[in-house]
Amino acid sequence: MLYPPDRLAAAQRATAAAGLDALLVTPGSDLRYLTGYHAHVLERLTCLVLPAHGEPTLIVPRLERPAAEASPAPATGVRIVDHADGSDPYPLVVKALGGAVARVGLSDRMWAMHALALRDTLPDAVQRLAGEVLAPLRIRKSPAEVAALREAGAAIDAVHARMGEWLRPGRTEAEVGFDIANAIRDAGHATVDFVIVASGPNGASPHHETSARVIEAGDLVVVDIGGTMPSGYCSDSTRTYAVGRPPSDFIEYYDVLHAAQKAAVAAVATGVTAGAVDAAARDVIAAAGYGEAFLHRTGHGIGLDGHEDPYIVDGSSLALAEGMAFSVEPGIYLAGRHGARIEDIVAVVDGGADRLNTLPTDLVLL
Amino acid sequence: MLYPPDRLAAAQRATAAAGLDALLVTPGSDLRYLTGYHAHVLERLTCLVLPAHGEPTLIVPRLERPAAEASPAPATGVRIVDHADGSDPYPLVVKALGGAVARVGLSDRMWAMHALALRDTLPDAVQRLAGEVLAPLRIRKSPAEVAALREAGAAIDAVHARMGEWLRPGRTEAEVGFDIANAIRDAGHATVDFVIVASGPNGASPHHETSARVIEAGDLVVVDIGGTMPSGYCSDSTRTYAVGRPPSDFIEYYDVLHAAQKAAVAAVATGVTAGAVDAAARDVIAAAGYGEAFLHRTGHGIGLDGHEDPYIVDGSSLALAEGMAFSVEPGIYLAGRHGARIEDIVAVVDGGADRLNTLPTDLVLL
Repeated sequence: MLYPPDRLAAAQRATAAAGLDALLVTPGSDLRYLTGYHAHVLERLTCLVLPAHGEPTLIVPRLERPAAEASPAPATGVRIVDHADGSDPYPLVVKALGGAVARVGLSDRMWAMHALALRDTLPDAVQRLAGEVLAPLRIRKSPAEVAALREAGAAIDAVHARMGEWLRPGRTEAEVGFDIANAIRDAGHATVDFVIVASGPNGASPHHETSARVIEAGDLVVVDIGGTMPSGYCSDSTRTYAVGRPPSDFIEYYDVLHAAQKAAVAAVATGVTAGAVDAAARDVIAAAGYGEAFLHRTGHGIGLDGHEDPYIVDGSSLALAEGMAFSVEPGIYLAGRHGARIEDIVAVVDGGADRLNTLPTDLVLL
Repeated sequence: MLYPPDRLAAAQRATAAAGLDALLVTPGSDLRYLTGYHAHVLERLTCLVLPAHGEPTLIVPRLERPAAEASPAPATGVRIVDHADGSDPYPLVVKALGGAVARVGLSDRMWAMHALALRDTLPDAVQRLAGEVLAPLRIRKSPAEVAALREAGAAIDAVHARMGEWLRPGRTEAEVGFDIANAIRDAGHATVDFVIVASGPNGASPHHETSARVIEAGDLVVVDIGGTMPSGYCSDSTRTYAVGRPPSDFIEYYDVLHAAQKAAVAAVATGVTAGAVDAAARDVIAAAGYGEAFLHRTGHGIGLDGHEDPYIVDGSSLALAEGMAFSVEPGIYLAGRHGARIEDIVAVVDGGADRLNTLPTDLVLL
């Protein structure tokens, strides 16, 4: 259901339309999107060679052949070719292309070691990014993909709903993070992708992870967590917790943040620009005098990658469309003191925002 | 201890000696090795600009600045520069370089999206791989690094030692894998990197992960597991288990494999080539008639990455030296039937192999 075979054909048409002769796709979300094959990201070359016209070839290390054959890839019509450890696999790419080409698109997250080896193997081919072709396809989720994101959202919501079991004074961030990670897996995720437990002054660092800091009564704690479901689709949600009675200055700016997050979600509609959604949050925060404390964009797309198009960023002219899914996560960070962030994933469904995280967005008092 | 400040200076000397003007290092093991900064691998540009001569600069997204400042990086002498979401960060690289350069080394695992953006920003700079410079530094582990790998080895050994708690007839591979993943974290790893539970015919696929297959009495099961410790150093170990009485043809080839693995470990010595270690295992397996069933190289280096130099592969002329650490993991795979692999990590210490996994390598009868 999640990897219909027509994706390869659609990608080939888009490749031709972009003036590229072929896409070269190494393991990661692009490969999984196109073929359903969830391959290891490794130094050994695995590469889908997808010409604009003609037969696609999946080049794999010999030891990966059984796994590739057991994946959904063969059913999409790709031919599998393998190479032994110690042999040079890059000439197989030339062979799969049927000879020299003028322009190729590399998967956006291909490692430089492969990109430069392909440059040397195809010295006359201009390298561009496969994202030019694939991002516009991946950005609009099908109903089945939105359902997979909703399942991921419910799983991470179930973890946030249990936070009071773990987040208590006297415990370290790392101890709390350990319990959260176990709960992320218990809730049905295949992998734990990140666990941020940012207490007290650490809350002012948006990408703090965990530390040995002991959580104290009265602390504010930003908890931003996510994982990947067996479907391949990702979860990502942030809530801010008050362990005991929060200080009044914090409550004041949390209320601003809360209004900003709601305003951005309310701004989501077909045809509205990503920049306008960012502005909807940013304007509320700036008007209250906290503009400098909102250190980052309002959100990022989510799907088979935790961060992908569309980016909800100041100035973006990208028009939202049905099926786009992204985070809405403004934050306010006061260095040396504390911080707060509220994050939900939404999908554009029936022209507006469909929240895929459904817990309340109020400050959670523990 | 694990990121002494002289690493940056050593890398600068090696950069100059290699004829490169600078290294451009995005998040991953190279950045962690050089600065101790364990940064998120993201679409936003984080990049250490390390000129062959002069001051290093760490370019980070603005929201990552607090995390970068809290990391060991500032103590190594790097200057931190940030960029806001929505601004173009690549000109900051040119500025940090002090102008145009002729040759740059990109970290081997830099994403193509960054590599091509840097190509367009520095159109006259030839791109090579930073691995040319950094791999020879990273390949020889210090005593502190060997100690970190030994700690990782003990942690994964503790998981294998408990396998009888989970690996039982009537359970699925996925259920067993779930318990193993929890145990990997309980044993002190920061992340679970892979869990292979390959039962029965799945054992013939070297990189099978887990599946819904129910383990049956009499099954052979290959369990290959690993994670990353809080130090950043990785574990990786494989044992083959017999759930009940194994068939006699399996015992025959397991004995061959066991002898091959011991022969390869015994062959490890300063000055011996990586190819000779591979041959030590391969010759035993080939002589017994299973040469075609050993589908892959004998091993891979391990450190801050799960796979890194040196690769123990047929034909390699690399001479082993003090401090090198790598897996010794021959396997025999019979398609449609079953398979076996035995894997230990060893370090070259005092001129020979120091096993960092210390469990017996016999077939484990459960």
